[in-house]
Amino acid sequence: MTTNLTNIDFYFDFSSPYGYLAATQIEQFAGRFKRSVDWRPILLGAVFRVTGGRPLPQLPLKGDYAQRDMRRSARFLGVELNMPSQFPIATQVPCRAYYWTQGHNPGMARQLALALFKAYFVSNKDISSPEVTAEVAAGLGLERDQLLAGINDQAVKDRLRNEVDTAIKRGVFGSPYMVIDSEPFWGVDRFPQMERWLSQGPF
Amino acid sequence: MTTNLTNIDFYFDFSSPYGYLAATQIEQFAGRFKRSVDWRPILLGAVFRVTGGRPLPQLPLKGDYAQRDMRRSARFLGVELNMPSQFPIATQVPCRAYYWTQGHNPGMARQLALALFKAYFVSNKDISSPEVTAEVAAGLGLERDQLLAGINDQAVKDRLRNEVDTAIKRGVFGSPYMVIDSEPFWGVDRFPQMERWLSQGPF
Repeated sequence: MTTNLTNIDFYFDFSSPYGYLAATQIEQFAGRFKRSVDWRPILLGAVFRVTGGRPLPQLPLKGDYAQRDMRRSARFLGVELNMPSQFPIATQVPCRAYYWTQGHNPGMARQLALALFKAYFVSNKDISSPEVTAEVAAGLGLERDQLLAGINDQAVKDRLRNEVDTAIKRGVFGSPYMVIDSEPFWGVDRFPQMERWLSQGPF
Repeated sequence: MTTNLTNIDFYFDFSSPYGYLAATQIEQFAGRFKRSVDWRPILLGAVFRVTGGRPLPQLPLKGDYAQRDMRRSARFLGVELNMPSQFPIATQVPCRAYYWTQGHNPGMARQLALALFKAYFVSNKDISSPEVTAEVAAGLGLERDQLLAGINDQAVKDRLRNEVDTAIKRGVFGSPYMVIDSEPFWGVDRFPQMERWLSQGPF
């Protein structure tokens, strides 16, 4: 008897520190439960236009706390995090680079996503720039000029728009946002609940 | 040699489901690290007037998720939670009942706070009503008419206002919000980080 385990949907914005923290954990986490992960970078700015949300750092009191909590959560998880000098940034470019790579070199797409996150949240590289994103991709052996062309490909732009629209329809309002068998989990701090869900079933 | 361990400040609103969940955990938690807890009920509505925050259920998308997450978090912690039919409610009355009791029968104050939380989040009793709150207090042996008078005591009203003002000055923007040795922790999902902080020191 075979069981077909559904993939974990992993929604995130490349400018989200908590999204970055989740990205460093999720593959190893999912592997423990024999699940695959569908990485789905989205544009939180587009989501916020629907939900009325705002980037954390702009919120009174909560913004100051968040700056502290992001750093502390990284240390708690043992993950290197250096808050970038430009924050937040627009993330159309890294999102499109991801979806283009997924279409043309699927085995490299997750590796690119993680490398882009690290370029931004460890090495302070502004991945909103096509040149910077292409440089990160080239570091993984992807073809720089093809990737730069891919970022401007209308099909790739449409794919990103579809992912964002679908995310909003599914109720995604933040980053990271994971969906396991239709059950939504928001935040890297929900991994303990996800762990129980995957190991013991729905609760 | 004696070490003087500071108390844990525990800010919450009686209408906050996550505050209720934290209230069911915090005394046993703090006791493991030989800490005492200062329970500090506040009015989140007054905080939101400063921060621009809104009650979770009113937020698009996030509100629907929160309704689900509150229930799941209760099950995760093994705590009984029945979402009240009136939610959220104004919490001046239970706050004042708490501070009056703290002044007149301090040994009973925390017990009253937890009983009020359970009356609201387990038994669907509307503790915004002075009569309901007094009934809960009477169930613990507190004198009903004295408590009803205490709720209208100007000194008690002033005490609550001071607690709210101090909370805002300290950056409290949500419930539950714990402060340990000047380090702030927001949310019942920060107990794992609090645990590391208390067991291994600042990180």
